[in-house]
Amino acid sequence: MTARVTSSLDDTLATIAGLGGLDEAAMAGARDHLDRLTKPPGSLGRLEELAIDLAGITGQPFPTMARRAIVVAAGDHGVARRGVSAYPSDVTAQMLANFVGGGAAINVLAEAVGASLTVVDVGVAGPLAAVLPGDERGGHLVRARVRAGTADMTEGPAMTRGEALRSIEVGVEVMAGLRASGVELVGTGEMGIGNTTAASAIVAVLTGATPSAVTGRGTGIDDATHRHKIAVIEQAIARNVPDPADPIGVLAAVGGLEIGALVGVILGAVAGRVPVVLDGFITGAAALLAAGLAPTAGRVIAAHRSVEPGPAIVLDRLGLRPLLDLDLRLGEGTGAALAIGLIDAAIRLRDGMATFDSAAVSGPVDGVTGPGTTP
Amino acid sequence: MTARVTSSLDDTLATIAGLGGLDEAAMAGARDHLDRLTKPPGSLGRLEELAIDLAGITGQPFPTMARRAIVVAAGDHGVARRGVSAYPSDVTAQMLANFVGGGAAINVLAEAVGASLTVVDVGVAGPLAAVLPGDERGGHLVRARVRAGTADMTEGPAMTRGEALRSIEVGVEVMAGLRASGVELVGTGEMGIGNTTAASAIVAVLTGATPSAVTGRGTGIDDATHRHKIAVIEQAIARNVPDPADPIGVLAAVGGLEIGALVGVILGAVAGRVPVVLDGFITGAAALLAAGLAPTAGRVIAAHRSVEPGPAIVLDRLGLRPLLDLDLRLGEGTGAALAIGLIDAAIRLRDGMATFDSAAVSGPVDGVTGPGTTP
Repeated sequence: MTARVTSSLDDTLATIAGLGGLDEAAMAGARDHLDRLTKPPGSLGRLEELAIDLAGITGQPFPTMARRAIVVAAGDHGVARRGVSAYPSDVTAQMLANFVGGGAAINVLAEAVGASLTVVDVGVAGPLAAVLPGDERGGHLVRARVRAGTADMTEGPAMTRGEALRSIEVGVEVMAGLRASGVELVGTGEMGIGNTTAASAIVAVLTGATPSAVTGRGTGIDDATHRHKIAVIEQAIARNVPDPADPIGVLAAVGGLEIGALVGVILGAVAGRVPVVLDGFITGAAALLAAGLAPTAGRVIAAHRSVEPGPAIVLDRLGLRPLLDLDLRLGEGTGAALAIGLIDAAIRLRDGMATFDSAAVSGPVDGVTGPGTTP
Repeated sequence: MTARVTSSLDDTLATIAGLGGLDEAAMAGARDHLDRLTKPPGSLGRLEELAIDLAGITGQPFPTMARRAIVVAAGDHGVARRGVSAYPSDVTAQMLANFVGGGAAINVLAEAVGASLTVVDVGVAGPLAAVLPGDERGGHLVRARVRAGTADMTEGPAMTRGEALRSIEVGVEVMAGLRASGVELVGTGEMGIGNTTAASAIVAVLTGATPSAVTGRGTGIDDATHRHKIAVIEQAIARNVPDPADPIGVLAAVGGLEIGALVGVILGAVAGRVPVVLDGFITGAAALLAAGLAPTAGRVIAAHRSVEPGPAIVLDRLGLRPLLDLDLRLGEGTGAALAIGLIDAAIRLRDGMATFDSAAVSGPVDGVTGPGTTP
């Protein structure tokens, strides 16, 4: 399918602004139920918090989260020409074919948690048709290329403001399609050689952190390349002077098309009260941009702590505590899929455990239980 | 079934002593395969380390880990009479019925990862028959009660040396049965009101840490009860003066019957090259005792970082880094089951991903990849 850009970003932002905060009544309903299950109150820790958060986000005390999707947005980066990545740009299109064919890490992990995979070409540089295996065993491909890769951001803006807006609207549209098909939980992922450079630049601009504080080694580069990558980001920021108060302008100046699409996916999910799981650094940069457009759009679930230095800055800014810490540095939504596994566990516990009454198990001894036991 | 104690602990220890270290050839085979998959080398972090560790432990480059089991050992504690727990001792037998009936958290999580559940009564105090629902929907019950709960360790040894040995041999026997039925991966769990007090005492004796450094709030107790719990542990150690060089003696003096059974499960698994996943503090205390009997028995997989203070001391002593950090404080093997979910993901990735060659994806650019990319 070709995604038609018909949804309006303005409408989405208006919807988000019209939503209240988390649904306190739904959260209280979830909490009361969890406290009746055969375990000390709160003893399942963050799994209980997840069940309560999902209630608050969806407005339902017991959302099923039965239909899950991972969205992997892909785009190429003109700045990759500057030698900032360990891999050539061709790999973006090759990996897209791998996602569609079913051979990538995200295919394995999405299947393990019962999530569908939607792969969005928002801005891959090379031809896709030639490398596609002819079917969609692994993922559903959305062809919505806004342009064939960004321009080199050290020489000017990565894309025009109009292209930045269109990339976001592609994401809003993809999310609208997923919601229409009944998706209740979405994980985010990305593919784009060079995109840790773009994400580092975005995070530096939006948070005021220096490029050297934000910039990691991406998929694995040596010391000299790492220093070069920092210099490239400094050069891009100096060349474009993006205004941190203008997220669309930041995306256009130093962003990426797949990052724009992820901003749209996040905004569309938040507007539809669909819980959204961030993966790592790139999706975190998208969440920061989304929160710049609508403050409550930062109300997402962080999957994991990455080994890159930038993600900690992003999570701190968004006030998020990640669920996992597994030294992942792949992207593709792999961390998000693993976190969906924990969400699945939280839902199963909520729905599958006996209550103290039904199992005839005694509660705490009066006068011994202290305040530490109430979550 | 009633477990017959026929396995010899001495035989098990001799088998462990006869094993070499981790199988380096199997680990190299696993590593070579992982590096051919369509991802930067090592980018799946700890999931790749897990796949390599499983090869080293089992001696096979690609162990399937298809049959998994959780063993929950249960026993009561005379010291619970001292008011160290938020729950009455009756809850141990009630929860055993809940495990067998299928309503506990561990039932839900074991089922989610395709693990069978074996529940072992090594030393519950109260009657079981009256509270059993009459079938084994949730878990298979092994009746192997060595005695009906330990004695109050503040007044003398928790059990005799013979009982301590028998409790270990129950665990060895249970593990032998699981191995005979084809189990390739085992997670440990426990149930026993008062057992964080016993585990704290064991860990204090074996590591030399003070009871106040080791002792947490268990299932949730107030400040006064917490201070009382520390005093009780100090009193028990002062009364029995266990020798840290004699693990069986420590188990007899300040241990628990379910802790002894877990020592046996761990030793039996290590002797059979079956990877074993620790849950939290109680199972960690059992692993410390096992390592005291056979140093390489500490070569286990730690599931999670608990909110109790003692587990960090145990993990540090065993040199283990836990996989998860989810504020769990339930026990029952719940953390181990969640960790088995990550092991499952590691195996699926190892077996399900395409290679660079098969997917026609380019490798790194020469001269850009640095040493950081090799795991």
